[in-house]
Amino acid sequence: MGILYVAGIGPGNEDGMTVKVRRILDECPVIAGYKTYIELVKPILGADKKYVDTGMRMEKERCRMALEEACGDDAKVCMICSGDASVYGMAGLVLEMAEEYPEVRVEVIPGVTAALSGSAVLGAAVGHDCALISLSDLLTPREVIDKRLSAAAEGDFVICLYNPESRTRKGYLKHACEIILKYRDKDTVCGAVRNIGRDGEQYELMTLEELTGYEADMFTTVFIGSRRTVAAGGRMVTPRGYEL
Amino acid sequence: MGILYVAGIGPGNEDGMTVKVRRILDECPVIAGYKTYIELVKPILGADKKYVDTGMRMEKERCRMALEEACGDDAKVCMICSGDASVYGMAGLVLEMAEEYPEVRVEVIPGVTAALSGSAVLGAAVGHDCALISLSDLLTPREVIDKRLSAAAEGDFVICLYNPESRTRKGYLKHACEIILKYRDKDTVCGAVRNIGRDGEQYELMTLEELTGYEADMFTTVFIGSRRTVAAGGRMVTPRGYEL
Repeated sequence: MGILYVAGIGPGNEDGMTVKVRRILDECPVIAGYKTYIELVKPILGADKKYVDTGMRMEKERCRMALEEACGDDAKVCMICSGDASVYGMAGLVLEMAEEYPEVRVEVIPGVTAALSGSAVLGAAVGHDCALISLSDLLTPREVIDKRLSAAAEGDFVICLYNPESRTRKGYLKHACEIILKYRDKDTVCGAVRNIGRDGEQYELMTLEELTGYEADMFTTVFIGSRRTVAAGGRMVTPRGYEL
Repeated sequence: MGILYVAGIGPGNEDGMTVKVRRILDECPVIAGYKTYIELVKPILGADKKYVDTGMRMEKERCRMALEEACGDDAKVCMICSGDASVYGMAGLVLEMAEEYPEVRVEVIPGVTAALSGSAVLGAAVGHDCALISLSDLLTPREVIDKRLSAAAEGDFVICLYNPESRTRKGYLKHACEIILKYRDKDTVCGAVRNIGRDGEQYELMTLEELTGYEADMFTTVFIGSRRTVAAGGRMVTPRGYEL
């Protein structure tokens, strides 16, 4: 039986991968993934591999190619996802499509998603209950996104926004902030991290009001604090509630 | 300047740590943490270390001890947290208390939290927007927890419950399910994972109605699907929305 691992590689550098993911990448002769992520792992793994990559919005083709490669008794394929394998990753789609490939066993291996790696860069932005929301409306209706923003703001979660903007989706972060501002104070502590774990990593703390005018991009993860979140020594910290 | 790393070690085995955390653990002569987690890393790291451990509810003492150990020019201390360093971890408390220790630099290193590792065991439970909620009311008022449960259910998030029950907190999961059932169908796909990445790991899929009668413990992480979550080939999968 062939095996297809779906692995979250974290931000993209070797340090951010789990020990298991690092080993699986060595063990698998075939590595599949979105071409940007393939470029991240190639320097680590070398040319002695078969790389199966596709571009953006080619997710189904990518999964199909990986599943085809994993057919055959000793096949070992690793499909890589940035961050975690489940959270906005490929694990779900692979598992659904794998029902057509009974000869392939699928194993999902988790990884550090941007809510965690970004939180650590900022300090401890996500120190308590949190909600992860993607602002991408490619696959999710905008009404669903807006409803989730309202619910998360009303529930006083720390909110972590994935895909806040892109070249074709301008103004989405501002729109999200305006919804959140209906429930939260304009001075709520917020943070933004760009290029987590990659060249050019940078972070910034700001208020929710300032975030409304912030220019994010595809490589930014945005954090909106809860009512309890503070800026402590230049870091964004959401306390668990210990009395100091 | 001394350094105090606050590191998320994932579920507790070596495989689940990031490459960076694994290396930092080797580099630091002093390892601090809750005694249960110290016991998890001791077999990996050996006796050639100074271990600084405290029991449950001794979090402030633990942080203080770790900060004291990190004073001194070449001091290198690693405070370990199960799962991630921020998410219900010690990073926030350490950063707040570190303001009294200007001679100590604090670096937070993320790890794989149970929402991700449990999701992978189940399949891809957290494939889209999700909310993480701890049911522990040790530090959080029950009204706040209940309000977040309502908000997350109404917002149709995949909900991941940490600390669903303990010996002293019986009936909390049932209570949470009853709140969620006001907004969600009783047939909503749910899952529970026990002892993630440790001996005796097991998982179960069930409906929200069945979850209401499920007996969880301190080592269980519970997942309540969104309206889109399905059971595919015995796995819990929340699709991102690709048309199959």
